[in-house]
Amino acid sequence: MNNESIQTIVEEVMSRLSAGTEKVNSVPLAVSARHCHVSQADLEALFGKGYTLTKKADLSQPGQFAANETITIAGPRGSLEKVRILGPARHMTQVEVSRTDSIKLGVKPPLRESGDIIGSAPITLVGPKGSLYKKEGLIIAQTHIHMTPEDAKGFGVENGEYVEIKVGGERPVTFGKVLVRVSSRYKLEMHVDTDEANASLLTGKQAGELVKIEGIS
Amino acid sequence: MNNESIQTIVEEVMSRLSAGTEKVNSVPLAVSARHCHVSQADLEALFGKGYTLTKKADLSQPGQFAANETITIAGPRGSLEKVRILGPARHMTQVEVSRTDSIKLGVKPPLRESGDIIGSAPITLVGPKGSLYKKEGLIIAQTHIHMTPEDAKGFGVENGEYVEIKVGGERPVTFGKVLVRVSSRYKLEMHVDTDEANASLLTGKQAGELVKIEGIS
Repeated sequence: MNNESIQTIVEEVMSRLSAGTEKVNSVPLAVSARHCHVSQADLEALFGKGYTLTKKADLSQPGQFAANETITIAGPRGSLEKVRILGPARHMTQVEVSRTDSIKLGVKPPLRESGDIIGSAPITLVGPKGSLYKKEGLIIAQTHIHMTPEDAKGFGVENGEYVEIKVGGERPVTFGKVLVRVSSRYKLEMHVDTDEANASLLTGKQAGELVKIEGIS
Repeated sequence: MNNESIQTIVEEVMSRLSAGTEKVNSVPLAVSARHCHVSQADLEALFGKGYTLTKKADLSQPGQFAANETITIAGPRGSLEKVRILGPARHMTQVEVSRTDSIKLGVKPPLRESGDIIGSAPITLVGPKGSLYKKEGLIIAQTHIHMTPEDAKGFGVENGEYVEIKVGGERPVTFGKVLVRVSSRYKLEMHVDTDEANASLLTGKQAGELVKIEGIS
């Protein structure tokens, strides 16, 4: 075998290895439409005393489910009907919308990580048995990736770190500030909202490529 | 003056020069909400024989204007009211919507450059004096930048080339495939649709940074 052949083979092997490396950085994408998380007390205020959520379908994150129950959310300018409640019930009630939704409602929710609702925007929730005015709880969700500690090790990232996610397709988009959330209860998945999905013309099952941001940890 | 001071000054000068270089690649952003361009014949079918568009406001692109006239556009699943007509009247009628809009209408318009409507999606236009079913004309606009030949020379890009545009802010996004359109009639400006604007949480006047895509011309 001459040197040229060896060179060709080595290049081919290196190219396949590098293709393999890229594949390790692949993150499945999922679109989060507007939804609510509710506390048990707020659920009972909306649906009646003693009411509990009923499961419509399991979500991809283990233990989480889409409930059969939906509510109307209302702001000073408009309302959105049939907003799905996700279960199980949580400690605090939280409503996550896209910016397009927020314009329709006439409110200015901040961009926040799930659970961080102190000082967020007010929202009215309307259920079949009552309605609630929440002084805070409405947010636009910080784009994030759920992953296990093993995934994080594989990507070389840590909980709380921001990374970039490159999405290809007809209208390729790179999301420049995506929060890494690590828990053994999670399943690897990036959540984008409907604005992000529609801006990048996401179609069905797609994956993004995780890119570390240099100089930021 | 000692060497350390010289070093400090040189670093400062280099840093300012490099900041200046980045500024050269700055492109003002503008959000294009859903809108229509209409042919004179279609305008008369919608508004009555002999009707001509009336100007509400000049647009940033020279000679283009927002008309006072609005129409309803309708698809199999829903409709959108008060869709602005942009003037002057064109050779062909064309309706540009976001993907969010298209989901509401229940149609699947292709991503196209303005003017390229052959085989695009059908749409119904409803005016005060009549309505029209167009077999084609509905598109999602290919993200693009208008610029003059002088701008193009400055950026080192050509008409028809694709570039990346990086947008900063709270939710930074890089648009990966942005068409460069060059004409002496244009004014430098990148047009994004409302989905792209809302995905990147654009607020008022902002600029993006043009980045050449290596290996693509």
